This record gives sequence, C-alpha cells and structure tokens, in this order.
Amino acid sequence: MNALGTHLLLELKDCNREVLDDLALLQNVLVSAAEEAGATVLAKHFHHFAPQGVSGAVLIAESHLTVHTWPEHGYAALDIFTCGDKVNAELAAQILIDKLQSKDPAIMNIRRGVLVEQPV
Amino acid sequence: MNALGTHLLLELKDCNREVLDDLALLQNVLVSAAEEAGATVLAKHFHHFAPQGVSGAVLIAESHLTVHTWPEHGYAALDIFTCGDKVNAELAAQILIDKLQSKDPAIMNIRRGVLVEQPV
Repeated sequence: MNALGTHLLLELKDCNREVLDDLALLQNVLVSAAEEAGATVLAKHFHHFAPQGVSGAVLIAESHLTVHTWPEHGYAALDIFTCGDKVNAELAAQILIDKLQSKDPAIMNIRRGVLVEQPV
Repeated sequence: MNALGTHLLLELKDCNREVLDDLALLQNVLVSAAEEAGATVLAKHFHHFAPQGVSGAVLIAESHLTVHTWPEHGYAALDIFTCGDKVNAELAAQILIDKLQSKDPAIMNIRRGVLVEQPV
C-alpha cells in the first residue's frame, strides 16, 4: 500500500535561541531547505510575535513546510509534508536541524493518504 | 507535563470530490473553521493544481491550518496545529469533516513541544 504523502514532524529541542527569534533567517532557512530538497516554492508567509517567537508557512507544489518557535524554551516545531518522489524530505529535515542547531532533535514520520482503492 | 501545541492530523477519505477541487470553497471553509474555533487568521494562501487538487495554508496567531486534496481519490489531508487554550481545535476538525462531507474520517492527535525544563 502506497501513501500519497510523507509527513515529517520535527520536534527540535535545545536549539539556538537567537535563530528561533530571527524571522528573516528562519524564512531563508525554510525556503532554502525546500529548494535544496527539490521542492518548488509557491508562497510563503512568516510572522514574528511579541515579545518573541516566529510562525511561518511555506506552500510548495509538493505540499508544505511550517515552523513555530518558542525561543524562551529553545524549542521549534517543524513540519515537512511532501507528495510524490521528487522531494527529499529527509534532506530538508537534516538541513533544518543543522540550521536551528538543535542538540536534541526528534522526527516522527507519518504516512498520509494510505488508500485502499476498490477495484472498479 | 504540558505540551506547547496540539496538532490534529485529519485523514479524510470518501469526501465530496467537487468540494475537494473547489479552491474558493476550501479557502472559505478553512478560514471559517479557524475563526469559529476562536483563532485569529494572519494570512492564507491557496493553490489549484492542474488537472485537479488544491493545497492551502492558513497561518493563525495560534499556529496553522493546512489542506491538501486529491479529488481523484476523494481524499484530503488536513492539519490543525494550535497553541494555547483559546482555540477549540476539535471544533475546527468537526467543521472540516462536515464541510468536506467525509464519510470515512480519522483524526490523529499529536502533542507538540512536550518539554521537561531543568530547574534553574
């Protein structure tokens, strides 16, 4: 049974707290990770919260990447959702872990859209 | 141990296939579900694919909602990621299931950012 999508949920603890509060840097990191992994970026939107924290979404032709950061906890939640065989989601994950300098990363890999079609 | 975020992953099978291919309707459904659940919408972007299918992301002050549809399979993958106590993510999920008319919905509930802080 094949899945339509691959969804990586990244739990990144013990990150560089300055990186987690830098909107421009995070936007560049997510877009670069998407492109280096072979994705086509369609749109992006990032928001900085007061007093701290960033949320962002990058819509790609192959699904999406998102980030939400809590600099006060050194923690970021990232998602990489891809479909098709073109994008190397694991490479994108490794880039994100490296750029956020997480010393305690964890990845959940969830298959989305596992369908059992009825024969016609 | 509290979690910083609640992440609902909706696997919606056997949906209304016309709804799954209607960008304007899906955008309205996601924004309405977010607002009815108590969220504050910051930005949204939706894209229609040729020959069919829609992807969309709604960034909210409390994190995000996303959708990816495969009308040819009657399937949609939706995510509702919220933080704080203000947003009723389960209500948003029920609205999405109803509006997409899924006859075979499933929800995974994943706690994001379960942190054990070291005492100072």
